[in-house]
Amino acid sequence: MNTIQYTFTATSPDKSGLIAAITHAIAASGGNILNLAQHTAVDVGIFFCRINFSVPESAVPESSDSESSDQSFSEDRFRELFDETARSFSLTWQLFRADKKQRMAVLVSKTSHCLYEVLLKHQDKQLHCDIPVIISNHPDLCAVATEFHIPFYQVDPAKGKAAYETDLAAILTEYRIDILCLARYMQILSPEFTRAWNNKIINIHHGFLPAFKGAKPYHQAWHKGVKIIGATAHFANEDLDQGPIIYQDVIRVQDTNSIEEFVRMGKDVERKVLVEGLRRYFDHSIFLHEGRTFIIE
Amino acid sequence: MNTIQYTFTATSPDKSGLIAAITHAIAASGGNILNLAQHTAVDVGIFFCRINFSVPESAVPESSDSESSDQSFSEDRFRELFDETARSFSLTWQLFRADKKQRMAVLVSKTSHCLYEVLLKHQDKQLHCDIPVIISNHPDLCAVATEFHIPFYQVDPAKGKAAYETDLAAILTEYRIDILCLARYMQILSPEFTRAWNNKIINIHHGFLPAFKGAKPYHQAWHKGVKIIGATAHFANEDLDQGPIIYQDVIRVQDTNSIEEFVRMGKDVERKVLVEGLRRYFDHSIFLHEGRTFIIE
Amino acid sequence: MNTIQYTFTATSPDKSGLIAAITHAIAASGGNILNLAQHTAVDVGIFFCRINFSVPESAVPESSDSESSDQSFSEDRFRELFDETARSFSLTWQLFRADKKQRMAVLVSKTSHCLYEVLLKHQDKQLHCDIPVIISNHPDLCAVATEFHIPFYQVDPAKGKAAYETDLAAILTEYRIDILCLARYMQILSPEFTRAWNNKIINIHHGFLPAFKGAKPYHQAWHKGVKIIGATAHFANEDLDQGPIIYQDVIRVQDTNSIEEFVRMGKDVERKVLVEGLRRYFDHSIFLHEGRTFIIE
Amino acid sequence: MNTIQYTFTATSPDKSGLIAAITHAIAASGGNILNLAQHTAVDVGIFFCRINFSVPESAVPESSDSESSDQSFSEDRFRELFDETARSFSLTWQLFRADKKQRMAVLVSKTSHCLYEVLLKHQDKQLHCDIPVIISNHPDLCAVATEFHIPFYQVDPAKGKAAYETDLAAILTEYRIDILCLARYMQILSPEFTRAWNNKIINIHHGFLPAFKGAKPYHQAWHKGVKIIGATAHFANEDLDQGPIIYQDVIRVQDTNSIEEFVRMGKDVERKVLVEGLRRYFDHSIFLHEGRTFIIE
Repeated sequence: MNTIQYTFTATSPDKSGLIAAITHAIAASGGNILNLAQHTAVDVGIFFCRINFSVPESAVPESSDSESSDQSFSEDRFRELFDETARSFSLTWQLFRADKKQRMAVLVSKTSHCLYEVLLKHQDKQLHCDIPVIISNHPDLCAVATEFHIPFYQVDPAKGKAAYETDLAAILTEYRIDILCLARYMQILSPEFTRAWNNKIINIHHGFLPAFKGAKPYHQAWHKGVKIIGATAHFANEDLDQGPIIYQDVIRVQDTNSIEEFVRMGKDVERKVLVEGLRRYFDHSIFLHEGRTFIIE
Repeated sequence: MNTIQYTFTATSPDKSGLIAAITHAIAASGGNILNLAQHTAVDVGIFFCRINFSVPESAVPESSDSESSDQSFSEDRFRELFDETARSFSLTWQLFRADKKQRMAVLVSKTSHCLYEVLLKHQDKQLHCDIPVIISNHPDLCAVATEFHIPFYQVDPAKGKAAYETDLAAILTEYRIDILCLARYMQILSPEFTRAWNNKIINIHHGFLPAFKGAKPYHQAWHKGVKIIGATAHFANEDLDQGPIIYQDVIRVQDTNSIEEFVRMGKDVERKVLVEGLRRYFDHSIFLHEGRTFIIE
Repeated sequence: MNTIQYTFTATSPDKSGLIAAITHAIAASGGNILNLAQHTAVDVGIFFCRINFSVPESAVPESSDSESSDQSFSEDRFRELFDETARSFSLTWQLFRADKKQRMAVLVSKTSHCLYEVLLKHQDKQLHCDIPVIISNHPDLCAVATEFHIPFYQVDPAKGKAAYETDLAAILTEYRIDILCLARYMQILSPEFTRAWNNKIINIHHGFLPAFKGAKPYHQAWHKGVKIIGATAHFANEDLDQGPIIYQDVIRVQDTNSIEEFVRMGKDVERKVLVEGLRRYFDHSIFLHEGRTFIIE
Repeated sequence: MNTIQYTFTATSPDKSGLIAAITHAIAASGGNILNLAQHTAVDVGIFFCRINFSVPESAVPESSDSESSDQSFSEDRFRELFDETARSFSLTWQLFRADKKQRMAVLVSKTSHCLYEVLLKHQDKQLHCDIPVIISNHPDLCAVATEFHIPFYQVDPAKGKAAYETDLAAILTEYRIDILCLARYMQILSPEFTRAWNNKIINIHHGFLPAFKGAKPYHQAWHKGVKIIGATAHFANEDLDQGPIIYQDVIRVQDTNSIEEFVRMGKDVERKVLVEGLRRYFDHSIFLHEGRTFIIE
């Protein structure tokens, strides 16, 4: 018997009995819990929970709008039933159906290593999303997009920021995009744009944030003489390179490495960090609280 | 209001509704779940679960033998109630009360780095156990034991394995030892002894198991030209260096490192791995299934 | 003024005055030392040395056969002069001219991640070699080869090992191949073949050698319950998975990871290790002594 | 025949023929090169070189003041001869005799993990120095000093910074101290003091510099939501936490870790980083250029 998988996420001020209430509600709705991850951050007294559960496919109506019989699982009914639990615990929650993939646009400039990584991992079924479009301010990576049979759009920043972002927005609307991935996209987005896509833009910064914000982080790192360099996947927000961190990784460098070698070695870290950040996003593992993320895996 | 903390662990063939049943039973017994970690190993279809929960101190009778009122939490009653749940799910389970520490004997030979590490981490309250005795086949580390005000016993292997292990057993009995830590203890224990302490002996092997079993693993590794060396904390069983692995860590070596440097660099890994292995033991994070461990944190 | 770069490598039983003699000979021949790495392995008393030096382009005749004036650098003359130094120190040495690239054939089966990595790093000028041909026992990766404009040959093992290897050898001869890269090539080569290409075949093994030799190393690792998995780039020789190790890397796994996840996580390690192994080969950093490598960087 | 070992270090603007000139001069003075590490930092055009060489003990006069015969190695004569080479290459150089150990004072406050690490590694002969005195602004760690038979001084900061540093300086003079180690010493030193000990004070900062300077770096890191934390050994200079970085290491943290756990996990990194930094200092591997270190190993 085939099953449909759901991911349920919840956040609330910590209170006794939360897990029992949640797991009971899922079981009562016909869900079979496959995996439960929860954590209470004692330093702020906040509870986070992510549950994967399955229901028999036959029990789920094709469309969630359709009327459902008493025996079947209905998202609407679950939502209705669960709202009561949520209210009594001041719970903020979301429900994601696994077979409804989010649609991601990849924005690039001239460097290919992050784009290749995203496309290859996606091809290898490691990123649970659709990638309907690639957008760039340069023509260089069009051939890569073509290799993977994905439409490529070049948007020209020379026409001015406002016009540029209008074009960008039109493409995102046309392709019904849910989330943006900046894969070494070397163009600064306006505050209006980032606000419109709040917590929906994932950027790869080629430095270990919060150190080495801004331009040429490998040059900064080399001149500072650091012994380890890193990269950071984070939500891009109004303050450049300051949004909540999603994933980081590092690599040890030698003082015999040149800046050029820092750049080369950093590329491997960047592409890995970007994909690991995206994976956590599509796995619904990222919780936001007071300006930072909590990744609950 | 003070609370008493418990850790509950369970293993069973995976079945729908398990988590809901367990969390319900704990809540119904007056327990407040602080932390729940669970995992279903899909490759073998086994469910593992560890739950930390607390109950108000007032609700817990001083002794679990005493009669408890209806309002209070009683381990006996919990056990009684829970047995039913357990039977219906073929659940194997254990309950640990946090303020009842296990008693660990540390066995050593001549090398001090692992002993120091265990004692310093214990002193820093990072190992939730008592260390009432240190035992050695050599006198060298007596001064270290004295620094930490722990009785030191030298047992002489020259008198023959059987007599030696009789002496050893007597000390372990006298100090009511629950678990043995072999902190670079260079003496082979008999099959009878290891059987008697099955899954109760934690050893540090100075190699990355299953490679480099047996003697002089750093020499083996150097002559093989490996680029990374490691250490392994594992349960010691009858087959030397073959028991279930608890924790491992590694360090990159250069081909310009000598065997002597391998030994020196390895020491840092060994002491860290041993303590991390012990920590997982005392946190009740280690589950055993089909000859391997599953660490559920 | 343009320069030609050379790499000089030497091995010998350690003797006083070696470095002074070598550096003097290079300077006397008109070479400017850019970089010198040397190491004496005290455990075996062997000296290894790798020197990068440059000479003015004008000083190097187009062809080393041509007669050279007194002012110019001549490889032949250097070899002649240096032979004397080498004899007196029992030195084994080689001289590589940087602008003469080695020609590498990549052998693959069905999995693309290692092939992509080799081709992308090569495209990014991180592997100092030519890749004139890709050979496979399956047709699956032909499209990848085409993307990178490299001829692809499918050789059919069904016709028998001997005929198969005859075909293989013919292609290698046709493309004047110097070195073979087995990029997850799932076909066992005959002892005759590996002997003919002794220390000229670099394989990626998806396990941390010497543990987990042979088939399905991730399955072996999972069932053993190791906490860290790895991959190994090594010279393939007659004893399968036993040749000298060139590079290794590892990744920490959780006991909550399935075998399938081991495989997925391992892929990133494999591709990285293979490329790092190849890089060291083309940088002439690999020395062989008594069945193991010494990487002198 | 016993030998005396020397370490020779040199820095200069890169010039052709440097290594040949240096190695020739050492050979001509009767030195046998054991190990040579050199590097030209192409981004700044600076050459760094460290050479370990030995001379027969008989050839070295007890005191360098004594007149030496023609056959023997004399530091004075070497210095005299070498000055000429140095001048022609604008070389800055130093010569260290291995059996003359530097004398290090360890300054501590209340936390013991770094102090223990320094003392244990020193006891294990991994730090090539003498530790004649331990100084603190608190009495807490006196017992640890006593365990290792090292005099302990408590200097009271309550008497005012100037008086305090006068006391400190008197102790350092009395014990003929060459270098200071701040092993989690929680007292800010005056600019006058740090200037007097310029590049002679090695501090461990419990954060990954240049991120998280200043107080409570683990709290800063937790609130920022970083995924990796680290520690930094650096020369302490006038700008707090800004001196040249000597060594760094990191550890991955989970978002389920509390600030308290960050602190605990960080301790292991701190102690390791401090000792690795000190080791490089006593191995004469640290070169300073334009405000950063170059570690040439």
